[in-house]
Amino acid sequence: MKATREYLKRHNSELVLKTIYDHVEISRADIARITRLTRTTVSEVVNNLIEDGLVEELGYGPSAGGTPPMIIRVVKDWRSIIGIDLANDEFRGGLINLRGEIEHWECVPIHDSDGEAAKALIFQLIDQLMKHATRPVMGIGVGTPGFIDTQNGIVIEAVNLDWRQFPLQQLLKDRYQVPVLISNDSQVAALGEYTFGDPKDDSNLIVMKVGRGIGAGIVVDHHIYYGDGSHAGAIGHVVVKDEGDLCRCGHCGCLETVSSSRAIVKQCKKYAAMNPNSPLNQVADINKLSTDDVIQIYNNGDPAVIEIVHRAAHYLGVVIAHMIGSMNINRFLISGSVSRFGEQFLDVIRKTVKARVLPAQLDGLRIEEANLETEAIALGAAAMLMAKELGIV
Amino acid sequence: MKATREYLKRHNSELVLKTIYDHVEISRADIARITRLTRTTVSEVVNNLIEDGLVEELGYGPSAGGTPPMIIRVVKDWRSIIGIDLANDEFRGGLINLRGEIEHWECVPIHDSDGEAAKALIFQLIDQLMKHATRPVMGIGVGTPGFIDTQNGIVIEAVNLDWRQFPLQQLLKDRYQVPVLISNDSQVAALGEYTFGDPKDDSNLIVMKVGRGIGAGIVVDHHIYYGDGSHAGAIGHVVVKDEGDLCRCGHCGCLETVSSSRAIVKQCKKYAAMNPNSPLNQVADINKLSTDDVIQIYNNGDPAVIEIVHRAAHYLGVVIAHMIGSMNINRFLISGSVSRFGEQFLDVIRKTVKARVLPAQLDGLRIEEANLETEAIALGAAAMLMAKELGIV
Repeated sequence: MKATREYLKRHNSELVLKTIYDHVEISRADIARITRLTRTTVSEVVNNLIEDGLVEELGYGPSAGGTPPMIIRVVKDWRSIIGIDLANDEFRGGLINLRGEIEHWECVPIHDSDGEAAKALIFQLIDQLMKHATRPVMGIGVGTPGFIDTQNGIVIEAVNLDWRQFPLQQLLKDRYQVPVLISNDSQVAALGEYTFGDPKDDSNLIVMKVGRGIGAGIVVDHHIYYGDGSHAGAIGHVVVKDEGDLCRCGHCGCLETVSSSRAIVKQCKKYAAMNPNSPLNQVADINKLSTDDVIQIYNNGDPAVIEIVHRAAHYLGVVIAHMIGSMNINRFLISGSVSRFGEQFLDVIRKTVKARVLPAQLDGLRIEEANLETEAIALGAAAMLMAKELGIV
Repeated sequence: MKATREYLKRHNSELVLKTIYDHVEISRADIARITRLTRTTVSEVVNNLIEDGLVEELGYGPSAGGTPPMIIRVVKDWRSIIGIDLANDEFRGGLINLRGEIEHWECVPIHDSDGEAAKALIFQLIDQLMKHATRPVMGIGVGTPGFIDTQNGIVIEAVNLDWRQFPLQQLLKDRYQVPVLISNDSQVAALGEYTFGDPKDDSNLIVMKVGRGIGAGIVVDHHIYYGDGSHAGAIGHVVVKDEGDLCRCGHCGCLETVSSSRAIVKQCKKYAAMNPNSPLNQVADINKLSTDDVIQIYNNGDPAVIEIVHRAAHYLGVVIAHMIGSMNINRFLISGSVSRFGEQFLDVIRKTVKARVLPAQLDGLRIEEANLETEAIALGAAAMLMAKELGIV
C-alpha cells in the first residue's frame, strides 16, 4: 500500500497547505472542519509542514469556550521564487515570496537585443537575482511574449525577440538546476492579477492587456486556461472591422489595428496631418506622438481625439461582448497603457458590451482597470510556479 | 482516520472505475500501471466493484509471457439513466445505459403546452420511461432550453415553455426519488457529442447548434464549461451586424437575426416577394417555406439562395473566429437544421474563420458537422448524470 499512502499523504498535504494559505491564519480544528479530514490527520500533516519549515505556529487565538486554539500560518518567506517578465522594453524580474511580496527587483535594458543576445540578457538578469537571494530559490517562472508551447516549455515564435522554436525552459533548467515554467505574458499577467491583485471572490477572470499589442489572459477555476494549443486569449488579431487597415499579421481590420496604443497614435497623427488646428499639432514633434500625449489631449476634451479613442474602446467592447457571450466570465480587467484613458473610456466599453449581449450574461459583470501594473507578469509567473510546485495560490 | 480512508477509498474507486470505463476492456495489472496504484489496492477496489455488480470479469486475455491476465470491463447495463430533451417540438427521452445505448425511447407531443401543462407532460414522459425500465434507474438528466441555474436546478427563464424561476430539479427529485440534474440544452448536447459521438481524442469541444435558435455548448477538460452564471455558450444573441434586423431579444443584428433557420427562411421569403421568377416561388405556399425547401433550392444551385445561405455561414464564421481567438479550442461541431446545408456551407464558415484569426490558432482546427443528431441532448443529459454519480464519461 506504499504508493497509495504516499499519494494520500501528498494529497492531504496539499489540501491542508492550500487551506492554510487561503485562510491566511487558521487553527487545526478549523482546517479539519473545512477539509473534512480528521483532526488526527490534520495534526499529522501540519506537524510535517512545520517540520519542513513551510508552516509556523503563531500563538493562541481567542477561545470559543474551551482551550484557546493554536493559530498557524504559511511561512511566507520559506522560499523565494524568481518571476521574470520578458514582455516589455526591458527585461525585468524579482525575487518573490509566497505572498507575492517582491523582495528584490532587477531590470536589464534590452536595446533591441534579440536571439542569442536576448538569451544572454535573461541569464544576466537571473544571475543578478540569484546573487541577491537570501534563501533557497524554489524555481523560476517566466512570462514571455509570443506563442508558447507551455507543456514543452518552448517559445514557438516571439517575433520581437526573434525566437523560433526556442527551448527556453530547458536552457534555464540546465543553467539553474531548479524547476522552470514558461507561459505567454498575457496569460501569466491574468494569473498574477487573480492571485495577488484581485479580491479573489471569483473563480474566473479575464485580463485584457491593451498596449502596443493586445492580448488577453483567462483564468478558469483558479488556473490559467490555455486551450488546445496554449494560445487561448490571443485576441489581438481577431478581425473586428471588415475592410479595415492592414495589420502586421497579414489580415485586415484586426483588433490591434483599431484599439492598440499604436493604432490610436497612428490615427491621431493622421488626423493631425489633415487638421492643422488640432491640439495634437501642439506637441513638440508630431512624429514622436506618444500615448501619454494623446491621453493628455483626450483629458483636455478635444472632440476629435475623444472620437478616435472611443472608437478604440468600442471595438474592445465588441470583442469583450463575444468573450462574455461565449465564456460568461463576470470579472474583466483592462491593463496596459491604453487602460490609462480612465473611467470614461471604460464606460464606452461597458456601453458597447451592454448593447451586444443578453441581459442574463451581464448580471454580475464588472469591467474595471487592472490593479497590478508593472509587476503583474513577474508576479503571475511566480504564482504559476507556486501552483505547480506547492498546489497553492 | 475513518473519513480519510473513506475519502481515499472513494477516490481510488472512481479512478479505477474511470480507467476501466475509458479503456473498455483492461486487466488489473494495466490498471495498476496506468493509475500508479499498487496491484493490491487495484485488486481490492476491483473486487468491490465486481461485488457491487458495476464491473465484471470477461475472461483471460492473451499472455504477455506469464499467466494470462483476467480482462475486466464495466457492466454497461448495471443501471439505466433517464435522459430527457425538452428543446424540441416534442418532449423526448430515453432509458440509456452506461455506454450511451438507448434501451427505450419515448416522445410526447407538446402542442404548444407551457407552464403547468408542460410540467405535466414531463411527468407523463418520465412516468412512461420508468414503466419500461428493466433495471434500477440511477437518476434523471434533463436538457432544457432557456437560462438555467444549474447549481440550484432552477430554470431561470425558458420563454417558449413559459417557465420563470421554475424549480424543475426539485420537482423531479420529489416525484421520482432519484438524483436529478438539469442544464441548458446546448450545453448537454455538447457533452453528449463529446461522450458518445466524438472520437474523444480532444479534451475540449464546442458544439454549435444552429436551428430556429442558435446556442453553443462548450466542453473544457472533459466537462461542461458553465461560466460564472452558467450561461456560457449563449452566443445566439451576440450582436454581429451593426444596424441589423431587430431581434426578439430587443437588440439589433444578433447572430440569430442573420444565421438561424428562421432568419434564412425570412430572407428567402423577402427575396421571393421581390423576385417572382425565383424558384422559391415554386413551393406550394411561400408563407410556409421551410428550411428543407430552402436546402433543396440551395442544392439546385440558385444563386440568390446561395448568397443568403452563405451570408448566414459567414456570420457563423465571424462568431466562431472570436470563440477560437479566445478559447483556442480545436474541435468545432455544427448541429441543428442549418448544418444540413452541408459541406459547401461548412466551407464558407471555414474560409471566414481562416481569414479572421491567427494561423497559430488554426493549427489543428476542425469544423465539422455533428455526429449525433436527434439524441444528442438526451444522451448528454444522461452523461451529465453519470459524470456526477460515478465520475465516469
